Amino acid sequence: MTKIFSSSLRCRLPVLVAILEVLLLVLYAVFVTYDDSTNAAHQTNQTDPLQNSVYHVYPFFVDVQVMIFIGFGCLLAFMKRYGFGGMVFNFLTATFAIQWAIVVQGFFQFYHDGKIHVGVFNLLNAEFACAVVLISFGAILGRTSPIQLLVMALLEVPIFAVTEWAILKYLKINDAGGTIMIHIFACYFGLGVSAVLYRPCLNEGHSKEGTTYQSDILSVMGTLFLWVFWPSFNSSLTLPGDDQHRAIIHTFIGLSSSTLTAFALSALLNRKGKLTMADIQNVTLAGGVTVGASVDMMISPVGAFALGMIGCTACMLGYKYLTPFMAKKLRIQDQCGIHNLHGLTGLISTMAGIICILIASEDTYGPSLYQTFAHRAPVEGDPRLKELQELIPGLNPGEGRSASEQALYQVAALGVSIGVSIAGGLLTGLVLSLPVLAQPPDEFCFDDTLYFEVPEEFDNNMLPTRNRDMVAIKD
Amino acid sequence: MTKIFSSSLRCRLPVLVAILEVLLLVLYAVFVTYDDSTNAAHQTNQTDPLQNSVYHVYPFFVDVQVMIFIGFGCLLAFMKRYGFGGMVFNFLTATFAIQWAIVVQGFFQFYHDGKIHVGVFNLLNAEFACAVVLISFGAILGRTSPIQLLVMALLEVPIFAVTEWAILKYLKINDAGGTIMIHIFACYFGLGVSAVLYRPCLNEGHSKEGTTYQSDILSVMGTLFLWVFWPSFNSSLTLPGDDQHRAIIHTFIGLSSSTLTAFALSALLNRKGKLTMADIQNVTLAGGVTVGASVDMMISPVGAFALGMIGCTACMLGYKYLTPFMAKKLRIQDQCGIHNLHGLTGLISTMAGIICILIASEDTYGPSLYQTFAHRAPVEGDPRLKELQELIPGLNPGEGRSASEQALYQVAALGVSIGVSIAGGLLTGLVLSLPVLAQPPDEFCFDDTLYFEVPEEFDNNMLPTRNRDMVAIKD
Amino acid sequence: MTKIFSSSLRCRLPVLVAILEVLLLVLYAVFVTYDDSTNAAHQTNQTDPLQNSVYHVYPFFVDVQVMIFIGFGCLLAFMKRYGFGGMVFNFLTATFAIQWAIVVQGFFQFYHDGKIHVGVFNLLNAEFACAVVLISFGAILGRTSPIQLLVMALLEVPIFAVTEWAILKYLKINDAGGTIMIHIFACYFGLGVSAVLYRPCLNEGHSKEGTTYQSDILSVMGTLFLWVFWPSFNSSLTLPGDDQHRAIIHTFIGLSSSTLTAFALSALLNRKGKLTMADIQNVTLAGGVTVGASVDMMISPVGAFALGMIGCTACMLGYKYLTPFMAKKLRIQDQCGIHNLHGLTGLISTMAGIICILIASEDTYGPSLYQTFAHRAPVEGDPRLKELQELIPGLNPGEGRSASEQALYQVAALGVSIGVSIAGGLLTGLVLSLPVLAQPPDEFCFDDTLYFEVPEEFDNNMLPTRNRDMVAIKD
Repeated sequence: MTKIFSSSLRCRLPVLVAILEVLLLVLYAVFVTYDDSTNAAHQTNQTDPLQNSVYHVYPFFVDVQVMIFIGFGCLLAFMKRYGFGGMVFNFLTATFAIQWAIVVQGFFQFYHDGKIHVGVFNLLNAEFACAVVLISFGAILGRTSPIQLLVMALLEVPIFAVTEWAILKYLKINDAGGTIMIHIFACYFGLGVSAVLYRPCLNEGHSKEGTTYQSDILSVMGTLFLWVFWPSFNSSLTLPGDDQHRAIIHTFIGLSSSTLTAFALSALLNRKGKLTMADIQNVTLAGGVTVGASVDMMISPVGAFALGMIGCTACMLGYKYLTPFMAKKLRIQDQCGIHNLHGLTGLISTMAGIICILIASEDTYGPSLYQTFAHRAPVEGDPRLKELQELIPGLNPGEGRSASEQALYQVAALGVSIGVSIAGGLLTGLVLSLPVLAQPPDEFCFDDTLYFEVPEEFDNNMLPTRNRDMVAIKD
Repeated sequence: MTKIFSSSLRCRLPVLVAILEVLLLVLYAVFVTYDDSTNAAHQTNQTDPLQNSVYHVYPFFVDVQVMIFIGFGCLLAFMKRYGFGGMVFNFLTATFAIQWAIVVQGFFQFYHDGKIHVGVFNLLNAEFACAVVLISFGAILGRTSPIQLLVMALLEVPIFAVTEWAILKYLKINDAGGTIMIHIFACYFGLGVSAVLYRPCLNEGHSKEGTTYQSDILSVMGTLFLWVFWPSFNSSLTLPGDDQHRAIIHTFIGLSSSTLTAFALSALLNRKGKLTMADIQNVTLAGGVTVGASVDMMISPVGAFALGMIGCTACMLGYKYLTPFMAKKLRIQDQCGIHNLHGLTGLISTMAGIICILIASEDTYGPSLYQTFAHRAPVEGDPRLKELQELIPGLNPGEGRSASEQALYQVAALGVSIGVSIAGGLLTGLVLSLPVLAQPPDEFCFDDTLYFEVPEEFDNNMLPTRNRDMVAIKD
Repeated sequence: MTKIFSSSLRCRLPVLVAILEVLLLVLYAVFVTYDDSTNAAHQTNQTDPLQNSVYHVYPFFVDVQVMIFIGFGCLLAFMKRYGFGGMVFNFLTATFAIQWAIVVQGFFQFYHDGKIHVGVFNLLNAEFACAVVLISFGAILGRTSPIQLLVMALLEVPIFAVTEWAILKYLKINDAGGTIMIHIFACYFGLGVSAVLYRPCLNEGHSKEGTTYQSDILSVMGTLFLWVFWPSFNSSLTLPGDDQHRAIIHTFIGLSSSTLTAFALSALLNRKGKLTMADIQNVTLAGGVTVGASVDMMISPVGAFALGMIGCTACMLGYKYLTPFMAKKLRIQDQCGIHNLHGLTGLISTMAGIICILIASEDTYGPSLYQTFAHRAPVEGDPRLKELQELIPGLNPGEGRSASEQALYQVAALGVSIGVSIAGGLLTGLVLSLPVLAQPPDEFCFDDTLYFEVPEEFDNNMLPTRNRDMVAIKD
């Protein structure tokens, strides 16, 4: 059985990767070129090399890289027999997703004169698309082959990119931390996929699904990397200056209050009053998502603190009650609980963002109001624009929206994000069900031996102690 | 027995955390607001967003975050049965300590117009207060409940903040790397707490106190994170420019020479001539503390190298001879040997700083002398001040101190730091002895099972091999 | 046996380290001083502290630090019984190599007025020399004592520094990512050493050479740290501005395409179609080296993508076929396969660089051509220089080389690098064979017990299960 399935990787993975690489190679060759800040020929005697955009963007890019490859990689390696899979399939999927997003987002956002123009800013954007795929991956961790993961990335990135583009271009919302476009989208897409890939047998628990002492520690390390660099994630696409500064502070405070809350609730909800590592690994991070939609606004430090507490509470209750309910009643299995960490918190965050939009005023923001809420700036030609431009040099014309108009657009964007992601997820799930994609059989879920050469001590060590010794003695 | 103690966390931890969170929430709501660089309303048409202070401070802040959450977290996870505790209680304690310090330090240092004004600079300062708590934690690792740790942070942060404020405001010392205010204070505070929490039985060694191969490697990783980012720690609060540049170089050289020395002494002092992992994990870092008090001065590269060697030697001898002596004769148990890594090295560093102050001259520093040693600058109104301000635009008036006057203030600060920290530590130790704080019984020291749900394989794997097999066979 | 060998470390390591430290101390004392950006006395009223070079260099320095101490450290800890050795000897060797390189490179590159002038830029350069030593270390991992490693660093750093200096001063090549000077040199030096230290018995495989599940995961973490920060490595010594920007993008794309290729080939070349962790740990990184020699040129994004694929394929085939061949037929054992990851890829990279030089034109680069290819700029006095300096303020005079002349110099540099490194490696290997350097006996290769105090569970856990239980039952 093992042999049949694992050996199937031998042809399928190389063939699929080869197709994807040739696809990327051709698209790169035909469409991708340098942008102004990377093209040697575009430098003039006016160019100050130290003002190149790379110096502003690269530090944030690197921080997000650490989150994606090391933070997610360790976090997902929490299972006793699926440490290789968690860390290594994350590596594979992320690498492909970013390359793919550079091209796909490029067509939507950075395409002119027949070319996609790239700099490190595109890479940063592509990392956000990648984060979408990795969050969705959390719902189906351990139940999917690397083939399926690559196909999921292949489909999810364009669906995400078109949604992102439509929202940015037509709805024009405030979403600095990517709550609506990243977390909500990723969550409902992942749940859509998971609903199609439902496996009834897993609701009874799976013998290979547990953790070990070492894998739990590794996973907490992943959490800590995400925790430490999350302020960079939430602030990397805000306006520079005070907006970015606030985003950093709010994220830090929100994460802190959600961490404290998570410890309290973990002990409270455990019947022996002990701490549960899965809570420490996941629920502590809820605050980072919850502050997302309003992260650059004047929510005040106490607002960030309160959002962290609320988001964390919802997330924890979700893990405790909603995830089992969804698995059993709705037939939606959510391996890492992304609906708690990204969905519920995302909804709270969106609501908080809308409230902040409704109460935002020039009293609080001064003329910067029309920068942070760019779409509320007067339209081109409006005499008020000129006045404001004297107060804020370089202010762009906006849409002249009122606060409540902006709020409605936020709601519309939320609806679009949820709608498209569910539809896209279900569709993708159907594609992933194709037998050719080498979906693992139930008994090899959460099991590295199917896809990896494992060290010989692995099989012995991973069996329950009693069996192991019985085997040894029989020998 | 386990049941009684662990279940007690169920009520106590949530209640304590709830109280602390409400406290923070109220203080944030009433007192905490944005500073000039985070407040949207304070931006004018003169503001250049890219000159926002966040861009200078945030990179150092992130580096110190990695040290606190990942570096300390891994380093403290070195015990075979206390890996969760080491890493996760560090996470909890650090998170609370930083939030708490933002408010408490805020009252002392950033309070005006009835409000504490925060930006990322406050967060950086709060991380230093947090480092104080975590160093003290090292003395009592594995012998304290998370309740006790939170209460310790609750008490230590204000005692530290008032001491720091008094020294900065009245004594006005040179202490760029925080030797006197961070390391010395944290060390003697921790020892004060530990003296009160003395457990005679632990002097005979504890069956759960050892390491495993994996936990030793994890702990070295923590050391490496601290080692790599220590230059950021020591330089983050210096003057920008050449002072900060020197701080980075001195820290790097001091760490390097202490690392080389640690390897040599580890082999020399082991009776089989082998290397001891605890030395690699701790003693290699001694140079980072030892260069602290003079880190921004013109100590010359060779000075940094020599300080690293001296500090490392003292630290190593401390581990070998002083720690056992203190535990047995003085009844002060020092689990991680903070007295060696922070106390002895701190004293050497303070002395080195004083010598550097005494020999500092305009020959070596040029007019910058009055920047690096700000309190030696002429007082307001002194005609020399004006002359100097032509050489150094923006030089602040100082106290007009001579070198030897400054040296005496350093000694005074050392005395204050040691005195307050010992008194504060003893007092805090008494509070921590209250039975309501759920201190673990002797047999559950260094044991995660008391506070955590552990994977089932844990108990089997962690028993000595012989017992494990006997158990298995009996089954 | 163990006793004899391990105890020998007791005298030899301290004595050797003491000698090295005294040597460094004297050299630092006599020769090393501050450079302009670290010397307080050199600051004037014109100095803007925030323009200090430290702010441009330090971020890259820190990233490379993470690669060297944490990335390499974890990567080399992949063996089941040599985790301490891999991580800790890397720490020791790197620390010494950097300090030593500060002095040795200092004499060649930063020496004037009788002094070596240091700033963080020297430290960054020294890290590259250190990387050379660590790559060479990969060839002989587990077969050498720490004494031998220190002696290797002692010899390799000067041989590298003189070669680097000669190439930079006389040959003047383009090698932004250090392909010719770092990777090629390090590889052939390491193979030279390894050839002399040949151990026939290891060709049959060694019982202690395998991995464990945990050590494989740890090693992948090392890979991920190297992967994430490699763009900083490849770009840290390029020209600021668009050159540095391109270097970052090319490295990222090259790594990505080599990662995808590595997954495909790993499954394809495994007879069961499974993924091999050693491939994930090493071959994924091939793209980072392969883009090195042309990393700052206008190779276009698709060029970087293609280079990653080609380099990865060569590297993978090298692991599969060339390494066993070299071990058996050429008597050159290459423990970590550095010839595949640094040699083959380095040769491809050098060739790619030469092609890029030959086709580079003002059409593509504009006048920046004479910055990126600095040696093609007109010589001092040439009227064209003046014209160009109007287009590019501050352009330095060059050598007036044509493209093909520059290409020939690249070939010459390659020859010099290979020739000197092989000769230097063989010579160093002979020195390392001296019995006084405590080379481990065959049966204690890849075994931490020889040099470290290991936790008691170590020996039991590391034996094969059957033996372990037999031992236990006999007891």
